[in-house]
Amino acid sequence: MERSYNRKNDEARPLEIIPHFTSNPDGSVLIKTGETMVLCTAMIEEKVPPFLRGSASGWVTAEYSMLPGSTDSRSARESARGKIGGRTYEIQRLVGRSLRGVVDMKALGERTVWIDCDVLQADGGTRTASITGAFVALYIALKKLHDNGQIPAIPIIDHMAAISVGAVNGELVLDLDYSEDSGAEVDMNVVMTGQGLLVEVQGTAEGKAFSRQELNAMLDLAQGGIERLIAAQKTVIQGL
Amino acid sequence: MERSYNRKNDEARPLEIIPHFTSNPDGSVLIKTGETMVLCTAMIEEKVPPFLRGSASGWVTAEYSMLPGSTDSRSARESARGKIGGRTYEIQRLVGRSLRGVVDMKALGERTVWIDCDVLQADGGTRTASITGAFVALYIALKKLHDNGQIPAIPIIDHMAAISVGAVNGELVLDLDYSEDSGAEVDMNVVMTGQGLLVEVQGTAEGKAFSRQELNAMLDLAQGGIERLIAAQKTVIQGL
Amino acid sequence: MERSYNRKNDEARPLEIIPHFTSNPDGSVLIKTGETMVLCTAMIEEKVPPFLRGSASGWVTAEYSMLPGSTDSRSARESARGKIGGRTYEIQRLVGRSLRGVVDMKALGERTVWIDCDVLQADGGTRTASITGAFVALYIALKKLHDNGQIPAIPIIDHMAAISVGAVNGELVLDLDYSEDSGAEVDMNVVMTGQGLLVEVQGTAEGKAFSRQELNAMLDLAQGGIERLIAAQKTVIQGL
Amino acid sequence: MERSYNRKNDEARPLEIIPHFTSNPDGSVLIKTGETMVLCTAMIEEKVPPFLRGSASGWVTAEYSMLPGSTDSRSARESARGKIGGRTYEIQRLVGRSLRGVVDMKALGERTVWIDCDVLQADGGTRTASITGAFVALYIALKKLHDNGQIPAIPIIDHMAAISVGAVNGELVLDLDYSEDSGAEVDMNVVMTGQGLLVEVQGTAEGKAFSRQELNAMLDLAQGGIERLIAAQKTVIQGL
Amino acid sequence: MERSYNRKNDEARPLEIIPHFTSNPDGSVLIKTGETMVLCTAMIEEKVPPFLRGSASGWVTAEYSMLPGSTDSRSARESARGKIGGRTYEIQRLVGRSLRGVVDMKALGERTVWIDCDVLQADGGTRTASITGAFVALYIALKKLHDNGQIPAIPIIDHMAAISVGAVNGELVLDLDYSEDSGAEVDMNVVMTGQGLLVEVQGTAEGKAFSRQELNAMLDLAQGGIERLIAAQKTVIQGL
Amino acid sequence: MERSYNRKNDEARPLEIIPHFTSNPDGSVLIKTGETMVLCTAMIEEKVPPFLRGSASGWVTAEYSMLPGSTDSRSARESARGKIGGRTYEIQRLVGRSLRGVVDMKALGERTVWIDCDVLQADGGTRTASITGAFVALYIALKKLHDNGQIPAIPIIDHMAAISVGAVNGELVLDLDYSEDSGAEVDMNVVMTGQGLLVEVQGTAEGKAFSRQELNAMLDLAQGGIERLIAAQKTVIQGL
Repeated sequence: MERSYNRKNDEARPLEIIPHFTSNPDGSVLIKTGETMVLCTAMIEEKVPPFLRGSASGWVTAEYSMLPGSTDSRSARESARGKIGGRTYEIQRLVGRSLRGVVDMKALGERTVWIDCDVLQADGGTRTASITGAFVALYIALKKLHDNGQIPAIPIIDHMAAISVGAVNGELVLDLDYSEDSGAEVDMNVVMTGQGLLVEVQGTAEGKAFSRQELNAMLDLAQGGIERLIAAQKTVIQGL
Repeated sequence: MERSYNRKNDEARPLEIIPHFTSNPDGSVLIKTGETMVLCTAMIEEKVPPFLRGSASGWVTAEYSMLPGSTDSRSARESARGKIGGRTYEIQRLVGRSLRGVVDMKALGERTVWIDCDVLQADGGTRTASITGAFVALYIALKKLHDNGQIPAIPIIDHMAAISVGAVNGELVLDLDYSEDSGAEVDMNVVMTGQGLLVEVQGTAEGKAFSRQELNAMLDLAQGGIERLIAAQKTVIQGL
Repeated sequence: MERSYNRKNDEARPLEIIPHFTSNPDGSVLIKTGETMVLCTAMIEEKVPPFLRGSASGWVTAEYSMLPGSTDSRSARESARGKIGGRTYEIQRLVGRSLRGVVDMKALGERTVWIDCDVLQADGGTRTASITGAFVALYIALKKLHDNGQIPAIPIIDHMAAISVGAVNGELVLDLDYSEDSGAEVDMNVVMTGQGLLVEVQGTAEGKAFSRQELNAMLDLAQGGIERLIAAQKTVIQGL
Repeated sequence: MERSYNRKNDEARPLEIIPHFTSNPDGSVLIKTGETMVLCTAMIEEKVPPFLRGSASGWVTAEYSMLPGSTDSRSARESARGKIGGRTYEIQRLVGRSLRGVVDMKALGERTVWIDCDVLQADGGTRTASITGAFVALYIALKKLHDNGQIPAIPIIDHMAAISVGAVNGELVLDLDYSEDSGAEVDMNVVMTGQGLLVEVQGTAEGKAFSRQELNAMLDLAQGGIERLIAAQKTVIQGL
Repeated sequence: MERSYNRKNDEARPLEIIPHFTSNPDGSVLIKTGETMVLCTAMIEEKVPPFLRGSASGWVTAEYSMLPGSTDSRSARESARGKIGGRTYEIQRLVGRSLRGVVDMKALGERTVWIDCDVLQADGGTRTASITGAFVALYIALKKLHDNGQIPAIPIIDHMAAISVGAVNGELVLDLDYSEDSGAEVDMNVVMTGQGLLVEVQGTAEGKAFSRQELNAMLDLAQGGIERLIAAQKTVIQGL
Repeated sequence: MERSYNRKNDEARPLEIIPHFTSNPDGSVLIKTGETMVLCTAMIEEKVPPFLRGSASGWVTAEYSMLPGSTDSRSARESARGKIGGRTYEIQRLVGRSLRGVVDMKALGERTVWIDCDVLQADGGTRTASITGAFVALYIALKKLHDNGQIPAIPIIDHMAAISVGAVNGELVLDLDYSEDSGAEVDMNVVMTGQGLLVEVQGTAEGKAFSRQELNAMLDLAQGGIERLIAAQKTVIQGL
């Protein structure tokens, strides 16, 4: 089995994070991991959902969508179908929860950060690329808030990134592309902080249940990959 | 912290599995775990979704819903709102994937098993109760198919059950009820087979990221709980 | 023609009313009439719809749904289809109107009682069983309000129950089950008070128009059945 | 109490039935009863719904809608709200059932008649005016089918019309206009054939239950009104 | 090529404008241009959309719909399909913009005029007939406001009407009916004021692009037609 | 009045057309006109809509959407709202019609080209940028079809581009950005071929009707702009 970009099992695809790809949002990042390309934006709204009004706490929420032309054969628009599908809901809830996991909501104050992850091209790993890119877009937006003097510090608790890992043809591999993902026996998404703590773990047996030993080996792979993603995020952030 | 039913941290709530609660479906189970009560039904349809036609493979799919009166303050019907919410999608996709993980689709043949999990009362753990109850409803439906001579064997690969585990007030506990779940720092759902293999792991930090040591300790708790659930399922199945 | 349970034409199916089937709602009843099984819940909300605000009057409203597994072959969920069907609307409007017919809205005060009738199993007569069961759930909820000292008396004007009657193979029969209902020439639902007054009459010719004499004979049958239903409701209520 | 058009309690409003109001449909009638004005059209489609395919039977189905400008204060379009309301469903099901009650489906053959009742102006009694007008539109469409030689006879079993009756301020009155209807204690719609047989009876207590004596007195009123409506329909039909 | 009503290329179809066709709306007009028949109503609401609150400006908005029976073969209701189609949106936006083009919003004051154009019969040119008829309905509604002393003058800046023009079989023609429209090479809708100024021009090549000379010739045709439409509108308005 | 980029009234904003921006679609172009940025993709499907089956003719259809982060304050997703808005429908119908105007449908054969225009950033002129960019994406997709030997020639009849023109503060200007567009008295979109023929003209008075002289002056401006756009498209196409 030859992996794309001649990768070893513990290697991720080439990564590119382009900040300020568009200028209207408070934060905007184009992230590319191999052929996967996601536009992540962060926009701040000076109000919170009803359940938080008067709580002095902020909120972070995320939406995710794939452009019709992002896939090999065209995917129908969810707006045209009149409803959002289950996979989309599942992903955007994951992205939102993950980002909330590293934001200090009290320090953010009563505002909402809207994260939008729009997949321009899909080749596997769009949900983890969304989280990794959205973290930087969120950082840019919160830095702008801080630069404007609206908050005394950037209310982010820790760095955070996400990557997929799985079992393909009996081998454990990092950062599956679409061709690997569609035939994987196990598919797992890991979201981890700069301290190596877990924010989210979602492992799914696709046809073959897995042992706790395999779970641990996959987490080792993911941890290595996430350390390198966080290093790349830090480089972008320092260059802002 | 006093737990409901005076439970220790590694104890699950009292369990009751009532087979044949209704008679129209091919399989029907009312499962109660503490105050949580879910009606799980399995119905067989002699066709498969388009992507499987002609494949000689079967399919298992699940839907999940909470009755408006299942919660303390009434939850609006998703049919009245005109769309299914993200949480519902997330859960029914989990239930469907979990059950598919233990069914031999080739042996099932070109038929679909529809699983419906309707929550009559909710007190935490409805998604894991749904999986545990649905496994038995699925078994009953497939046994009926076998008893009718339509399949040579019951196409179930292994037993399977699910339970929640989490961190509450800094302590790791098994089988959270609603009052525990709503304040938990970590919430994890584990689906495991009779062989102790993982079908699905979903761990989420709700405000505080967790270490890999904590992950392993929670998996230990879950494994003990699932062994006892599977023992209870076996008793019901033997009594059919 | 043999009727189910060896019934004569003026006999209803065996009835069971189980109060407090679930504990979250203010009132909860599981009603079984033969194989038909409906969970009726009543929940009180301390506000009224916009058109009643400031009127010092309360409101009672009902929703009805059939679980996918309630019928012999699975009925698709209305939430999945994204809209409520005409039959559902027709039934829930009937249930709501009927209950409002015996409640003193001024004495209830500015609150809404939400009635939910969820059919766990369907074998004909689900709308009349819903009304009969919902009356008891409503009573329990209003009694609780009274027991809590929120209203000086239980604001129910009269007892009330409902039953179906019809013409099958040229004979007039009481309480049709599904096999009778699907071939009936006339189908009629009658809602009546403890005083023998009509709250709602809906008679429909299904292929053969009926005379006013037949209408009267069917009303006689219904009246007898409803008297026995009300007697059963009273027993339950006295045992609360 | 002065009634509109100085009517006695047993008098209906002035009636006008204009056939061929539009020319595209197979049958088209504008019916006016007092200020209420409904455009009823009938269109024949040479196929039947799935459940009747191959049955050699036809089908009649109806849809009903109120134009936004039909009421005193504008009613929002159901297309703009994205869903049909419960009242609309209830009415169009009533119209469809009533018309099916007087059509010989075998003689119609495998075709569907689509009935559309669009209320141009509403002043009470729109559902009964819809039935009365739609009967004539249906007759015109079926006559055209017969004139074209597609069916050997017009497959209508009997004449049919509908009218409302009710209790207003303690008096029983025929053909309520909007101001009477909105304050009625009892509201009843009666659909009857030329032979005086009942096709549909729907009586509803709006705040005060009614006795069987009152039911009978209201049916007497309705019967007189329907005889005069059918006489008017016959005049129109003979003039075609 | 023979045109309907033996028209020359620069002749429009026979026109009839019936004011006060219904009495509930503030303004109501039935307009007929040949076989095309549209009911246009105008209703005044004493509030404005959120973006205009506190602006001391009014608003005019329009909705458009075709009755199912308006076309030769039945068109499904948009309410039944659960959404409004693109063509409907396009037309109702055009009608609204056109009317807003001749209303002095400051003089109207903070109120909304709701225009509804419901096509009772369609034979080409429904959108231009809607604009021409709606102008008169709008005028009647605003005159009523003025007659009631709510505004010091009727806030209409200029007369306005609309007509279609196009290229059919290589010839430029005015006021296309359906049979012409469905085969036209160019289809253009022109909205013009009493002063001969343009409010809206929408020209579309349907298979064959057109030159600026052709555009000008079509505008000449349209201008002649609109002058005659405005003359007819004036006659109706003077007769109010 | 200073225009963005120090432009004269007859100057368009800087243009950039990046072909092959993504690789999954058959044709993909990122077009930038000033700050406006649209991703246009073309995907070929080997079937046609029902109304063209068996006609030996092809079809071109377009969809348009704005990403939530494309505007200054976030625009809600149409998928989340559950329906497509009127403006979107209007634009995507315009894009589709315009492209169909220059394609030889017989030469295309029974296939559909799906055009998707997704606005990554919006600063006025998104609909005309969509048409100009989509023309190139369409060309690339059809060239690929031709290069693969599936069609004997690229079935495009003529070049085509689109631009906006309008009246702002009494002056006629080319290529309005958002700040100009939001205060324009007249807004016009012009779609023209390489031969200088009109495919679509849509001129709208936003508050002030315009004369035929102004219309002609605006068309002159547009024609100049479109000639320069087509020259730029040709450079891109030659470089493929």
